[in-house]
Amino acid sequence: METTTATPWLTAEQQGVWRSFLGGTTALMDRLDRDLRTAHGLSMPEYEILVRLSEAPGRSIRMAELADAVGHSRSRVTHTIARLEREDIVVRGQCSDDGRGVSAVLTDHGLSTLEAAAHTHVQGVNDYLLDTAGAEDFAALGRVMQQVVEKLNGKGF
Amino acid sequence: METTTATPWLTAEQQGVWRSFLGGTTALMDRLDRDLRTAHGLSMPEYEILVRLSEAPGRSIRMAELADAVGHSRSRVTHTIARLEREDIVVRGQCSDDGRGVSAVLTDHGLSTLEAAAHTHVQGVNDYLLDTAGAEDFAALGRVMQQVVEKLNGKGF
Repeated sequence: METTTATPWLTAEQQGVWRSFLGGTTALMDRLDRDLRTAHGLSMPEYEILVRLSEAPGRSIRMAELADAVGHSRSRVTHTIARLEREDIVVRGQCSDDGRGVSAVLTDHGLSTLEAAAHTHVQGVNDYLLDTAGAEDFAALGRVMQQVVEKLNGKGF
Repeated sequence: METTTATPWLTAEQQGVWRSFLGGTTALMDRLDRDLRTAHGLSMPEYEILVRLSEAPGRSIRMAELADAVGHSRSRVTHTIARLEREDIVVRGQCSDDGRGVSAVLTDHGLSTLEAAAHTHVQGVNDYLLDTAGAEDFAALGRVMQQVVEKLNGKGF
Protein backbone atom coordinates (compact mmCIF):
# COMPACT_ATOMS: atom_id res chain seq x y z
CA MET A 1 0.00 0.00 0.00
CA GLU A 2 1.48 3.33 -1.01
CA THR A 3 1.33 6.21 1.42
CA THR A 4 0.06 9.24 -0.41
CA THR A 5 0.27 11.79 2.41
CA ALA A 6 3.38 13.96 2.14
CA THR A 7 5.62 13.34 5.16
CA PRO A 8 7.76 16.24 6.38
CA TRP A 9 11.12 14.46 6.72
CA LEU A 10 13.62 15.44 9.41
CA THR A 11 16.59 17.56 8.34
CA ALA A 12 20.07 16.16 9.01
CA GLU A 13 20.34 18.46 12.03
CA GLN A 14 16.96 17.45 13.43
CA GLN A 15 17.89 13.82 12.85
CA GLY A 16 21.09 14.39 14.85
CA VAL A 17 19.16 15.89 17.77
CA TRP A 18 16.63 13.07 17.65
CA ARG A 19 19.35 10.39 17.70
CA SER A 20 21.10 12.08 20.62
CA PHE A 21 17.76 12.19 22.42
CA LEU A 22 17.12 8.48 21.83
CA GLY A 23 20.66 7.39 22.63
CA GLY A 24 21.00 9.65 25.67
CA THR A 25 17.62 8.71 27.10
CA THR A 26 18.29 4.98 26.67
CA ALA A 27 21.76 5.22 28.21
CA LEU A 28 20.56 7.40 31.09
CA MET A 29 17.48 5.38 32.03
CA ASP A 30 19.29 2.05 31.70
CA ARG A 31 22.10 3.28 33.93
CA LEU A 32 19.82 4.78 36.61
CA ASP A 33 17.72 1.61 36.53
CA ARG A 34 20.77 -0.61 36.84
CA ASP A 35 22.18 1.43 39.75
CA LEU A 36 18.87 1.14 41.67
CA ARG A 37 18.44 -2.58 40.97
CA THR A 38 22.00 -3.39 41.97
CA ALA A 39 21.98 -1.42 45.22
CA HIS A 40 18.31 -1.60 46.31
CA GLY A 41 16.41 -4.17 44.22
CA LEU A 42 14.13 -1.47 42.77
CA SER A 43 13.50 -0.51 39.14
CA MET A 44 13.29 3.13 38.05
CA PRO A 45 9.50 2.99 37.52
CA GLU A 46 9.09 1.44 40.99
CA TYR A 47 11.26 4.16 42.51
CA GLU A 48 9.15 6.89 40.86
CA ILE A 49 5.99 5.36 42.30
CA LEU A 50 7.48 5.27 45.80
CA VAL A 51 8.49 8.94 45.54
CA ARG A 52 4.94 9.92 44.62
CA LEU A 53 3.47 7.88 47.48
CA SER A 54 5.95 9.34 50.00
CA GLU A 55 4.78 12.85 49.14
CA ALA A 56 1.03 12.15 49.30
CA PRO A 57 -1.17 12.70 52.39
CA GLY A 58 -1.18 9.49 54.39
CA ARG A 59 1.45 8.17 51.92
CA SER A 60 -1.57 6.99 49.93
CA ILE A 61 -2.72 7.52 46.32
CA ARG A 62 -5.59 5.97 44.39
CA MET A 63 -4.31 3.50 41.79
CA ALA A 64 -5.88 5.42 38.89
CA GLU A 65 -4.35 8.72 40.04
CA LEU A 66 -0.99 7.04 40.51
CA ALA A 67 -1.08 5.74 36.93
CA ASP A 68 -1.85 9.23 35.62
CA ALA A 69 0.88 10.80 37.77
CA VAL A 70 3.67 8.58 36.47
CA GLY A 71 2.30 8.30 32.94
CA HIS A 72 1.91 4.51 32.89
CA SER A 73 -1.11 2.44 31.99
CA ARG A 74 -3.34 1.34 34.84
CA SER A 75 -2.62 -2.33 34.18
CA ARG A 76 1.11 -1.65 34.33
CA VAL A 77 0.79 0.20 37.64
CA THR A 78 -1.38 -2.60 39.05
CA HIS A 79 1.33 -5.09 38.12
CA THR A 80 4.07 -2.94 39.69
CA ILE A 81 2.11 -2.38 42.91
CA ALA A 82 1.45 -6.14 43.21
CA ARG A 83 5.19 -6.81 43.12
CA LEU A 84 5.93 -4.06 45.67
CA GLU A 85 3.20 -5.48 47.93
CA ARG A 86 4.95 -8.86 47.94
CA GLU A 87 8.09 -7.06 49.19
CA ASP A 88 6.11 -5.34 51.99
CA ILE A 89 6.97 -1.97 50.43
CA VAL A 90 3.35 -0.97 49.77
CA VAL A 91 -0.07 -2.25 50.84
CA ARG A 92 -3.37 -1.85 49.02
CA GLY A 93 -6.58 -0.79 50.71
CA GLN A 94 -9.91 0.92 50.19
CA CYS A 95 -9.72 4.72 50.17
CA SER A 96 -10.64 5.88 53.66
CA ASP A 97 -12.20 9.21 52.76
CA ASP A 98 -15.11 8.14 50.57
CA GLY A 99 -14.76 4.38 50.07
CA ARG A 100 -14.34 4.73 46.29
CA GLY A 101 -11.52 2.89 44.57
CA VAL A 102 -8.36 1.17 45.75
CA SER A 103 -5.32 3.04 47.00
CA ALA A 104 -1.67 2.10 47.29
CA VAL A 105 -0.07 3.01 50.63
CA LEU A 106 3.68 3.21 51.33
CA THR A 107 4.65 1.13 54.39
CA ASP A 108 7.31 2.10 56.97
CA HIS A 109 9.58 -0.49 55.42
CA GLY A 110 8.83 1.03 52.01
CA LEU A 111 9.76 4.49 53.26
CA SER A 112 13.09 3.22 54.59
CA THR A 113 13.75 1.46 51.28
CA LEU A 114 12.95 4.65 49.38
CA GLU A 115 15.20 6.80 51.57
CA ALA A 116 18.16 4.54 50.95
CA ALA A 117 17.42 4.34 47.21
CA ALA A 118 17.07 8.12 46.94
CA HIS A 119 20.77 8.61 47.70
CA THR A 120 21.75 6.36 44.82
CA HIS A 121 19.23 7.88 42.43
CA VAL A 122 19.95 11.56 43.15
CA GLN A 123 23.67 10.94 42.90
CA GLY A 124 23.08 9.36 39.49
CA VAL A 125 20.91 12.22 38.19
CA ASN A 126 23.61 14.64 39.30
CA ASP A 127 26.52 12.68 37.86
CA TYR A 128 24.98 11.62 34.55
CA LEU A 129 22.72 14.57 33.66
CA LEU A 130 22.95 17.71 35.83
CA ASP A 131 26.73 18.00 36.05
CA THR A 132 26.88 17.32 32.31
CA ALA A 133 24.35 19.91 31.11
CA GLY A 134 24.78 23.62 31.72
CA ALA A 135 22.02 25.32 33.75
CA GLU A 136 20.44 26.99 30.69
CA ASP A 137 20.37 23.85 28.58
CA PHE A 138 18.99 21.90 31.53
CA ALA A 139 16.17 24.45 31.88
CA ALA A 140 15.48 24.20 28.13
CA LEU A 141 15.28 20.43 28.47
CA GLY A 142 12.63 20.90 31.15
CA ARG A 143 10.58 23.32 29.02
CA VAL A 144 10.57 21.02 26.00
CA MET A 145 9.63 17.91 27.92
CA GLN A 146 6.93 19.66 29.95
CA GLN A 147 5.33 20.79 26.67
CA VAL A 148 5.46 17.21 25.40
CA VAL A 149 3.72 16.00 28.57
CA GLU A 150 0.98 18.61 28.20
CA LYS A 151 0.51 17.94 24.50
CA LEU A 152 0.28 14.16 24.75
CA ASN A 153 -1.68 14.10 27.99
CA GLY A 154 -4.02 16.76 26.64
CA LYS A 155 -4.84 14.43 23.74
CA GLY A 156 -6.12 11.86 26.20
CA PHE A 157 -2.89 9.92 26.12
CA MET B 1 23.32 0.05 56.51
CA GLU B 2 23.56 3.81 56.85
CA THR B 3 24.77 5.82 53.90
CA THR B 4 27.49 8.12 55.15
CA THR B 5 28.27 9.90 51.88
CA ALA B 6 26.57 13.29 51.64
CA THR B 7 24.07 13.26 48.77
CA PRO B 8 23.54 16.52 46.87
CA TRP B 9 19.73 16.62 46.75
CA LEU B 10 17.92 18.14 43.79
CA THR B 11 16.45 21.61 44.23
CA ALA B 12 12.71 22.04 43.68
CA GLU B 13 13.45 23.51 40.25
CA GLN B 14 15.78 20.67 39.28
CA GLN B 15 13.22 18.18 40.55
CA GLY B 16 10.61 19.85 38.29
CA VAL B 17 12.85 19.56 35.24
CA TRP B 18 13.65 15.96 36.07
CA ARG B 19 9.96 15.06 36.44
CA SER B 20 9.13 16.74 33.14
CA PHE B 21 11.95 14.79 31.54
CA LEU B 22 10.70 11.48 32.93
CA GLY B 23 7.04 12.16 32.16
CA GLY B 24 7.72 13.60 28.72
CA THR B 25 10.08 10.82 27.70
CA THR B 26 7.67 8.13 28.85
CA ALA B 27 4.70 9.74 27.11
CA LEU B 28 6.66 10.36 23.89
CA MET B 29 8.26 6.94 23.58
CA ASP B 30 5.03 5.13 24.49
CA ARG B 31 3.12 7.10 21.90
CA LEU B 32 5.68 6.66 19.09
CA ASP B 33 5.90 2.95 19.94
CA ARG B 34 2.13 2.57 19.93
CA ASP B 35 1.80 4.40 16.58
CA LEU B 36 4.39 2.08 14.95
CA ARG B 37 2.94 -1.11 16.42
CA THR B 38 -0.60 -0.20 15.40
CA ALA B 39 0.23 0.77 11.84
CA HIS B 40 3.23 -1.46 11.01
CA GLY B 41 3.69 -4.15 13.68
CA LEU B 42 7.10 -2.73 14.68
CA SER B 43 8.30 -1.49 18.06
CA MET B 44 10.39 1.68 18.39
CA PRO B 45 13.61 -0.24 19.16
CA GLU B 46 12.98 -2.45 16.12
CA TYR B 47 12.40 0.60 13.96
CA GLU B 48 15.69 2.17 15.13
CA ILE B 49 17.56 -1.01 14.22
CA LEU B 50 16.03 -1.06 10.73
CA VAL B 51 17.05 2.58 10.19
CA ARG B 52 20.65 1.79 11.08
CA LEU B 53 20.72 -1.24 8.79
CA SER B 54 19.19 0.71 5.89
CA GLU B 55 22.01 3.25 6.08
CA ALA B 56 24.88 0.73 6.28
CA PRO B 57 26.88 -0.54 3.28
CA GLY B 58 25.16 -3.67 1.96
CA ARG B 59 22.36 -2.94 4.52
CA SER B 60 24.48 -5.06 6.86
CA ILE B 61 25.93 -4.46 10.33
CA ARG B 62 27.72 -6.80 12.72
CA MET B 63 25.52 -7.70 15.68
CA ALA B 64 27.99 -6.28 18.22
CA GLU B 65 28.29 -2.98 16.33
CA LEU B 66 24.51 -2.78 16.02
CA ALA B 67 24.13 -3.18 19.79
CA ASP B 68 26.64 -0.39 20.41
CA ALA B 69 24.97 1.88 17.83
CA VAL B 70 21.50 1.68 19.39
CA GLY B 71 22.76 1.48 22.98
CA HIS B 72 21.17 -1.87 23.81
CA SER B 73 22.78 -4.96 25.29
CA ARG B 74 23.97 -7.60 22.85
CA SER B 75 21.53 -10.17 24.21
CA ARG B 76 18.66 -7.74 23.70
CA VAL B 77 19.69 -7.03 20.11
CA THR B 78 20.08 -10.76 19.44
CA HIS B 79 16.51 -11.29 20.68
CA THR B 80 15.16 -8.42 18.56
CA ILE B 81 16.96 -9.61 15.41
CA ALA B 82 15.61 -13.15 15.92
CA ARG B 83 12.05 -11.78 15.92
CA LEU B 84 12.68 -9.63 12.84
CA GLU B 85 14.19 -12.65 11.09
CA ARG B 86 10.97 -14.62 11.65
CA GLU B 87 9.11 -11.77 9.89
CA ASP B 88 11.53 -11.90 6.91
CA ILE B 89 12.59 -8.33 7.71
CA VAL B 90 16.24 -9.20 8.34
CA VAL B 91 18.47 -12.22 7.76
CA ARG B 92 21.61 -13.19 9.65
CA GLY B 93 24.81 -14.28 7.97
CA GLN B 94 28.58 -14.43 8.32
CA CYS B 95 30.32 -11.15 7.54
CA SER B 96 31.50 -11.37 3.95
CA ASP B 97 34.59 -9.18 4.23
CA ASP B 98 36.65 -11.08 6.75
CA GLY B 99 34.49 -13.95 7.99
CA ARG B 100 34.51 -12.68 11.61
CA GLY B 101 31.24 -12.47 13.52
CA VAL B 102 27.60 -12.52 12.51
CA SER B 103 25.87 -9.66 10.73
CA ALA B 104 22.23 -8.66 10.44
CA VAL B 105 21.14 -7.76 6.89
CA LEU B 106 17.99 -5.84 5.95
CA THR B 107 15.92 -7.72 3.34
CA ASP B 108 13.99 -6.11 0.46
CA HIS B 109 10.80 -6.79 2.38
CA GLY B 110 12.40 -5.20 5.44
CA LEU B 111 13.28 -2.08 3.46
CA SER B 112 9.70 -1.74 2.24
CA THR B 113 8.41 -2.20 5.78
CA LEU B 114 10.82 0.45 7.03
CA GLU B 115 9.86 2.95 4.33
CA ALA B 116 6.19 2.68 5.24
CA ALA B 117 6.94 2.90 8.96
CA ALA B 118 9.16 5.95 8.48
CA HIS B 119 6.17 8.05 7.42
CA THR B 120 4.35 7.26 10.64
CA HIS B 121 7.42 7.77 12.80
CA VAL B 122 8.61 11.06 11.31
CA GLN B 123 5.10 12.46 11.47
CA GLY B 124 5.01 11.55 15.16
CA VAL B 125 8.38 13.13 15.96
CA ASN B 126 7.20 16.29 14.22
CA ASP B 127 3.77 16.38 15.87
CA TYR B 128 4.76 15.42 19.39
CA LEU B 129 8.22 16.97 19.78
CA LEU B 130 9.49 19.26 17.00
CA ASP B 131 6.34 21.34 16.53
CA THR B 132 6.09 21.62 20.32
CA ALA B 133 9.63 22.79 21.09
CA GLY B 134 11.09 26.01 19.72
CA ALA B 135 14.20 25.63 17.54
CA GLU B 136 16.57 26.86 20.27
CA ASP B 137 15.18 24.62 22.99
CA PHE B 138 15.24 21.69 20.58
CA ALA B 139 18.93 22.35 19.87
CA ALA B 140 19.61 22.57 23.63
CA LEU B 141 17.88 19.22 24.07
CA GLY B 142 20.25 17.75 21.50
CA ARG B 143 23.33 19.20 23.19
CA VAL B 144 22.38 17.88 26.62
CA MET B 145 21.52 14.39 25.45
CA GLN B 146 24.63 14.10 23.26
CA GLN B 147 26.75 14.94 26.31
CA VAL B 148 24.93 12.25 28.28
CA VAL B 149 25.65 9.71 25.52
CA GLU B 150 29.32 10.60 25.49
CA LYS B 151 29.61 10.59 29.28
CA LEU B 152 27.90 7.21 29.82
CA ASN B 153 29.37 5.51 26.77
CA GLY B 154 32.80 6.87 27.67
CA LYS B 155 32.52 5.09 31.02
CA GLY B 156 32.20 1.79 29.19
CA PHE B 157 28.42 1.77 29.51
